[in-house]
Amino acid sequence: MDMDQVNSMDFVDFVDMFGNVIERCPLIAAAVWSQRPFHDLEDLEKHFCAFIDALPQAGQEGILRCHPDLAGRELQRGTLTAESQREQSAAGLQSLSVDERRRLAELNAQYRARFGFPFVLAARLRDRETVARELERRLHCSPEQELRTALGEVKTIGRLRLADLLGAPARL
Amino acid sequence: MDMDQVNSMDFVDFVDMFGNVIERCPLIAAAVWSQRPFHDLEDLEKHFCAFIDALPQAGQEGILRCHPDLAGRELQRGTLTAESQREQSAAGLQSLSVDERRRLAELNAQYRARFGFPFVLAARLRDRETVARELERRLHCSPEQELRTALGEVKTIGRLRLADLLGAPARL
Repeated sequence: MDMDQVNSMDFVDFVDMFGNVIERCPLIAAAVWSQRPFHDLEDLEKHFCAFIDALPQAGQEGILRCHPDLAGRELQRGTLTAESQREQSAAGLQSLSVDERRRLAELNAQYRARFGFPFVLAARLRDRETVARELERRLHCSPEQELRTALGEVKTIGRLRLADLLGAPARL
Repeated sequence: MDMDQVNSMDFVDFVDMFGNVIERCPLIAAAVWSQRPFHDLEDLEKHFCAFIDALPQAGQEGILRCHPDLAGRELQRGTLTAESQREQSAAGLQSLSVDERRRLAELNAQYRARFGFPFVLAARLRDRETVARELERRLHCSPEQELRTALGEVKTIGRLRLADLLGAPARL
């Protein structure tokens, strides 16, 4: 799909296609549609990122809270979005041992209790060992730093999803 | 459910419960959780409304674009959210004649083309004749006025949904 086709979409088709670029936040794709026409993929990405950056802190935390835990209950139950399912599988999170899963669940719970949002990571770019290591490391960051890091991961996930949807190479 | 129980919810439970107070915008409930504790239902409502009011115009339009058409394809297909399904049924939109449905579909399409978002109305408070009449009337409003009217309807829908969830009388 090229940018002319994207620019000619009505908002219903646009939200159908890009509604999960930011996990469970179709509102963001629906807002980005107001900014068309888009020059290219980079320009489209920029509008998603600019919307996130312009939100008040509670809204940014809200975006994070729409993300599932990594290797959490939703992966077990099969209720993840298709995109999350693919990404968590790519990191090998579906084939953890019972001990690995229990350890991640404990760390996820500590992280949520400390920061008030779930641990978000572009899982597709990592393997299971890195996921656990990053989670342990980020647990010790300051809340301000961690909000910034987590939003950076949200944007990376979004860039990868956009590139997939447009059949383009991802820009990281 | 009383406000002490609401205030003691973690964000996962809060978003599960209030995620569709604003149609298909769990991001908003997830952001509002940052503002707890809430004094009472009125205070909780205020935070939902304040979040909407603080968004840039594209974000406000984005909220509207997450709403389904009234008596549209999703009602036919049974893919509405549970809340929308109930509200559209309450207005009698499930039992339209073929001609009434066709007429509403035409008006909805004109409205979307004119304003760039779907026609939003707190259907539960109206009957089928009022829905069609309001749609015809609002088609002739200015875009600025219509954005304000539509966001007012979003807030009314949200107030009704919140009151339902908390088993309280609705404040309109």
